[in-house]
Formats: sequence, structure tokens, C-alpha cells
Amino acid sequence: MIIRDPENERIDELNDRGYKIIQNKKGFRFGLDSVLLTAFAIVREGEKCLDLGTGTGVIPLLLEAKTAGASFTGLEIQENVAEMAKRSVKLNGLEEKVNIITGDIKEAAALFPGRPFDVVTSNPPYMTVKEGLISGSDTKAISRTEIKCTLRDVVRAAAAVLKDHGRFYMVHRPSRLTEITSAMTEFGFSVRNIRFVYPKADQECNLLLIEGIWRGKTQCRVEKPCIVFDDEGKYTKEMDDIYFHEVLMNHER
Amino acid sequence: MIIRDPENERIDELNDRGYKIIQNKKGFRFGLDSVLLTAFAIVREGEKCLDLGTGTGVIPLLLEAKTAGASFTGLEIQENVAEMAKRSVKLNGLEEKVNIITGDIKEAAALFPGRPFDVVTSNPPYMTVKEGLISGSDTKAISRTEIKCTLRDVVRAAAAVLKDHGRFYMVHRPSRLTEITSAMTEFGFSVRNIRFVYPKADQECNLLLIEGIWRGKTQCRVEKPCIVFDDEGKYTKEMDDIYFHEVLMNHER
Repeated sequence: MIIRDPENERIDELNDRGYKIIQNKKGFRFGLDSVLLTAFAIVREGEKCLDLGTGTGVIPLLLEAKTAGASFTGLEIQENVAEMAKRSVKLNGLEEKVNIITGDIKEAAALFPGRPFDVVTSNPPYMTVKEGLISGSDTKAISRTEIKCTLRDVVRAAAAVLKDHGRFYMVHRPSRLTEITSAMTEFGFSVRNIRFVYPKADQECNLLLIEGIWRGKTQCRVEKPCIVFDDEGKYTKEMDDIYFHEVLMNHER
Repeated sequence: MIIRDPENERIDELNDRGYKIIQNKKGFRFGLDSVLLTAFAIVREGEKCLDLGTGTGVIPLLLEAKTAGASFTGLEIQENVAEMAKRSVKLNGLEEKVNIITGDIKEAAALFPGRPFDVVTSNPPYMTVKEGLISGSDTKAISRTEIKCTLRDVVRAAAAVLKDHGRFYMVHRPSRLTEITSAMTEFGFSVRNIRFVYPKADQECNLLLIEGIWRGKTQCRVEKPCIVFDDEGKYTKEMDDIYFHEVLMNHER
């Protein structure tokens, strides 16, 4: 049974094309990590994309707006969250290009047979069950903590649905770096690109963006640092560009 | 037979304590990477240190100057290079604390039985034999390319000579990141700390510093970015401090 919660829902504007998103004030709302992942991911004309654990559907919606990809599928295990994402798709009139599917990441190979995707994205739960202080709301807990799927489940799912040389983009915490690279290697990815995100130039990294190529044979690059705030606590020029032009405010790339 | 090459040797000053180092103009001379590794490594009072592939011995010499460690051993496979390093030790009157040993990294477990070290450092060859354009001089080639030992050999050697919770500090290229973390995991290290070095704030990373704890159970931190030059091409304040105070010019830490 899907539990709707209209009293706690709100509609936020996504960009200057008028895209909107429905979010639950008590649930997990999209943040900097989804925006950075969207900016980091490359989707070429005509490509098919899957977002694993899509939540409110923010990544498919933003990628649809930013790129000339052919289709954007979001997989979400929580029925009520998936249903809300479906309503966001409808609200934007994007049913032809964006498709939200309720289902389990661990079933991805069966849900999407024949390796249909060029690109997989994911902003998965960051915390292991051991370290995660289980959040008050179940919905938040599932989004933040590896209750329904682990890091390895996400990487395995990406490896199961990508075409040869397909690209997997993930945002995660640096504390999980060695696990991420070893899971990628284990499931047949070659890590091509990593970008470390630092809140300020003199602070330690709190997010990383990583690109893996399935069945690729590439060397790893570590891109220039992504610094979020300048010394005065304002967005750096790059973040300003990402937030207000590249991802949220502009269709061109 | 050790081939001396006095005509191409020169003596450089290391720091304001008057430390000197003999280097061969045609050979591999120490650079930013050794200095950064020395700044990154922590050696506590009374600890015993080993540098794998020590070359001219610059890392043991700099660590002896910078820290209150008890002893600093350098292992070098090339007889003529090791002999030159021994003369540098003598030149500085440090025979009691710094010990250069001619030998093979792959024999480290037999050379140093009983896990005597608290700290292992290494600035190993960066390039695989496949990618390395073999340098004109054999000495340079051995220092730069994995002719005599691979990345896995270096990590395995560190794992074989460290005490429980001993610390392994290495400088390497980001292109080898996934191999480094998987070799560390394979040989029983927990990666505790990584620092990425960027020539400028808007350029991609060209060096990384990594700390592994043998038989440790720690989460990985990614430290604040290390930026070498500012926009005008001058050393950043941090690099200036490292070069002229912390490592090369000052004993206190």
C-alpha cells in the first residue's frame, strides 16, 4: 500500500526551464551531492540512462534537462517515494522520456535484461548499517544507510545493466574510497576519473565523484579539486556556475 | 663492482643545519615528491624507520633532520647509488643513526627479520615497464620504471617488516590509485589517510601521498588538497613552509 503524505509535501523549482520536483519535508531531499553528480556525469545524444536508488527522481529530471540523452529511468525501492517521483515526472510532462520504476537494485539484472544502458548514475546510501545512526523516519534511513542495499550491490547492479564500455557515475564519501575502487575492480569496471570535493580549500574532502568504465582498460585520472565555498563562505565561481547555470538553470552544455 | 663517477657528482645543501647530499648529475635526483613525502610522514620519538628504494638517501636524511626517530635505514638495490648514499651519510656524520643497506626490496623480509620497523616510507618507481619509456641511463630507468620491483613488491615488503599498527607512507601517481589501494588491502593495510597534490588549484592531480596502517582497522580520510603553485606560478604558503622550514630548513616539528 502506498502511503501518500500530502500535508508534508512541497513543490520546489528545479531550474529556469520551469522544471519542478515534489519533495517530502520529512523525507530525504536532494542536496549538493545530486547536483554535483549531475554536473559530473556525461550523457551524449541518444544515450539511455539509469539512476539506481533515484529517490525523488532528481537525477533523471536534472539529466533530462541538461543533456540530449534519449531516456532516463529511475529505480526506487520505496513505493511511496517512487510514487512521488512519478508525480514529479507527470508534473513536468516528461512521461515520454523519464520513467520511474519501483523495484530493488538487487533485481536490476532481471528488471533490465539485455544490458540496455549507456550510462548508470547513483547517489547511494553512504553509511554502513554499523556506522549509521538509524534516522527517525524510515524513508530517510533507507536513503542514508545501507539497509536495503550495500555499496557492492549498487556496483554489481551497474555492472549487470551496462553495455560494453558503458559509464557508471557515482557520488560517495571518501571514507569508503578503498571499498569503492575494490568493488569497481571486482565487478569489471576500470576507474577512469575521480573528483574530490572539498567544502573549502583548507578543509578535508567530504564527497567524491567517480567514473567507472565497464570492461574498460583505462588509467585513473584525478581531476582538479572541486572547492565548494571560498574563504568568505560564498560559493566559488565553479559552484555558482553549476548551481545556477549548468545544472539547475540551463539546458545547454 | 661499484662504479664511482666523481666527475658527474655534485654536493647539494639540504637544510640550514648544514646537511648535505651527494647526487649524480646524470642520475635520478630528489625532487618535490621526496620532500612532500617527508612532510607527510609522521615519525615519533624513538621510532625505527625504513625507506624502501632510498636512492641517494634523501628521505632518511630529511627524516633524521625533521624528527626525533631513533634510526633511519635506507634500502637500495643499485650498488653505485647505495655507495653514494653511504658517503652522504658519512659526510653528515650520521653513521650512528642513518644506515644504508644494499639489497633487494623483494628480500626485505629476510633482510629485516622480526618486524623491527615502526614506519616504512617509499618513493618507488612510478611507471610500469609497459608504460615507461626506458630512460637513457640505467640508473634513472631503475628509479623511474618498475624494472627491479613492482608496486606490489613494495607494498608486500612494507607489510613484511612493520610492527602491528606500523605506518607505511608512500608517494605515487594518481594513475595507479586503484592498484595502490588494492595492493594495500591485499597485504593487510588499512588506508588511513590520502592527500592529493595538484600543481595548481585548477589543474589535475599529479601526485598522491598515502598512509596505510598494517593490521589497522581505520576509515579513510582524504586530507585538504595540497596545491603547489598559486595562480601566479609562485609556491603557495604551505609549499613555501614545507620547502624552507618544515622539511629542508628546520629540525623542530
